[in-house]
Amino acid sequence: MADLKSAFLKVYSQLKSELLEDPAFEFTDDSRQWVDRMLDYNVPGGKLNRGLSVIDSYRLLKEGKELTEDEIFLASALGWCIEWLQAYFLVLDDIMDNSHTRRGHPCWFRVPKVGLIAVNDGVLLRNHICRILKNHFRCKPYYVDLLDLFNEVEFQTASGQMIDLITTIEGEKDLAKYSLSKHRRIVQYKTAYYSFYLPVACALVMSGENLDNHVDVKNILVDMGIYFQVQDDYLDCFGNPETIGKIGTDIEDFKCSWLVVKALEMCNEEQKKLLHENYGKPDPVNVAKVKALYNELNLKGAFEEYESKSYEKLVTSIESHPSKAVQAVLKSFLGKIYKRQK
Amino acid sequence: MADLKSAFLKVYSQLKSELLEDPAFEFTDDSRQWVDRMLDYNVPGGKLNRGLSVIDSYRLLKEGKELTEDEIFLASALGWCIEWLQAYFLVLDDIMDNSHTRRGHPCWFRVPKVGLIAVNDGVLLRNHICRILKNHFRCKPYYVDLLDLFNEVEFQTASGQMIDLITTIEGEKDLAKYSLSKHRRIVQYKTAYYSFYLPVACALVMSGENLDNHVDVKNILVDMGIYFQVQDDYLDCFGNPETIGKIGTDIEDFKCSWLVVKALEMCNEEQKKLLHENYGKPDPVNVAKVKALYNELNLKGAFEEYESKSYEKLVTSIESHPSKAVQAVLKSFLGKIYKRQK
Repeated sequence: MADLKSAFLKVYSQLKSELLEDPAFEFTDDSRQWVDRMLDYNVPGGKLNRGLSVIDSYRLLKEGKELTEDEIFLASALGWCIEWLQAYFLVLDDIMDNSHTRRGHPCWFRVPKVGLIAVNDGVLLRNHICRILKNHFRCKPYYVDLLDLFNEVEFQTASGQMIDLITTIEGEKDLAKYSLSKHRRIVQYKTAYYSFYLPVACALVMSGENLDNHVDVKNILVDMGIYFQVQDDYLDCFGNPETIGKIGTDIEDFKCSWLVVKALEMCNEEQKKLLHENYGKPDPVNVAKVKALYNELNLKGAFEEYESKSYEKLVTSIESHPSKAVQAVLKSFLGKIYKRQK
Repeated sequence: MADLKSAFLKVYSQLKSELLEDPAFEFTDDSRQWVDRMLDYNVPGGKLNRGLSVIDSYRLLKEGKELTEDEIFLASALGWCIEWLQAYFLVLDDIMDNSHTRRGHPCWFRVPKVGLIAVNDGVLLRNHICRILKNHFRCKPYYVDLLDLFNEVEFQTASGQMIDLITTIEGEKDLAKYSLSKHRRIVQYKTAYYSFYLPVACALVMSGENLDNHVDVKNILVDMGIYFQVQDDYLDCFGNPETIGKIGTDIEDFKCSWLVVKALEMCNEEQKKLLHENYGKPDPVNVAKVKALYNELNLKGAFEEYESKSYEKLVTSIESHPSKAVQAVLKSFLGKIYKRQK
């Protein structure tokens, strides 16, 4: 695993070098150094799950045939395109959310002298994806499918981010604007497409598949992405901070979390009043009242029911897929997230 | 002319309607209204020169053959893609520059309840270009060339914006970081590609041309774009505010303007000291001292010399082009900007 990761990181270094010598732009020394530092700060520091899963998925689709060096490189390059996409979203999201830290460091826009130049850096990160695709896939018959795929998924993610932002404005005035269906829609568009569908779609395209024939795969992965985000919402409140590596603040931050929308669905008028009065306030007293209500409503139990039902449904869908190789890809994803504690 | 513009605006309405019914996203009512308002606020309110020039150029390339309705629609759609690209840049630039007004209205991020959601709106504007191209050009043999073209030009523009932003940080500490070559590079990448090359390139691609065979056209248009920006810098200081519709503030704002880099090139040590002491300060006394120096150095004369030399060089380049139709396109662009007062 450590070997796989270090091979993957080698591809990052190569892609970065190519971008820093891009003939479409005459860099000054200052600007080349800027991009170099900006990439190292924002692109490779995450868990790299999304990127690495392109290679895993492609390998499973090849059903045991050994991959050539060239295939590994190309699958890695696509994996990095997803990591670049993620970096682009995170740099801009942190500005919009006025966040302080990311992956244990100050957010990029909070680094001295960066400030709102980070907006343009976000744009550059997005542009790099097209440069990488052009450098390495321009002559492939599926080049245009890759461009369409990244464009569509980016559009869906930005649209999901939009309803999240708008819903939070409305929700802050009236908690009743939050609902399970709104939650599902935000999560599906903002997270599931790019985190779950995109890696597998990249592997399918590289295998010569037409994505129009894989709408069922897309639906399963989107459902898995939603399940993943519900876990995230659950762990934010009920997870062990030492295991998940952070202290959740969804209640303080007025987040449209699965827990609050589930609570709204389950509670009586009196409990609803308590939720309205205490949700989204920074004072620990308010937060404790919300948590006590969550326990009163047995949201742990509701989550466990949701988890086992989702799992069963996903397994049934996966097993009804005609291709054993595709089943293996989907099961591998599900195996990584089922009952996760972090 | 008014007819052409109103026909062009009709295409905007159609493109907007399609985007608001995009099957790739399930809009909520709130989010559909948000996008509707955001587009009307940011996309169609400019002079529309860039967009309209795609249709003009395509018509000239057709050498008098009447355009079909379909051709006019497609050229208009490409024109609107450039207007969408411009809106995307302006929405984000205004945030980075902390600007107050744009086209006589508050900048989008200053509109109540918008704020930094404008960052995501910028991203959506960029994504709309791909949606428009996919809706109307997916089946054209030149679809992938259009995607590559928009991607490359966006990359160049963002890269130019980056050196502008970095240069201004450095320049504020030391004016000597500004130079004619730095100015040229910023202007070429930040403005010339998308404002001058892109409209003609769209028309060429729609005519079935391979852009690799038109590097000379690109070079001429980039030179024209640089000339245009030098005029802009000149008019900011020496133009008639009533004619250009705004009061220039490049001196106060520490801009890397053609005037200040030309002045740095021409002035002696004493004059350089005066420039260092007075450039980039908001006080009218400092601004007046800079303007007096510009007059002392006869920058008006230097500009007129630059203008006539640029014009001659451009005419010579244009007339050496083998195609009369392409010559007509280039001359039409040059005619619109030569000796402009606004």
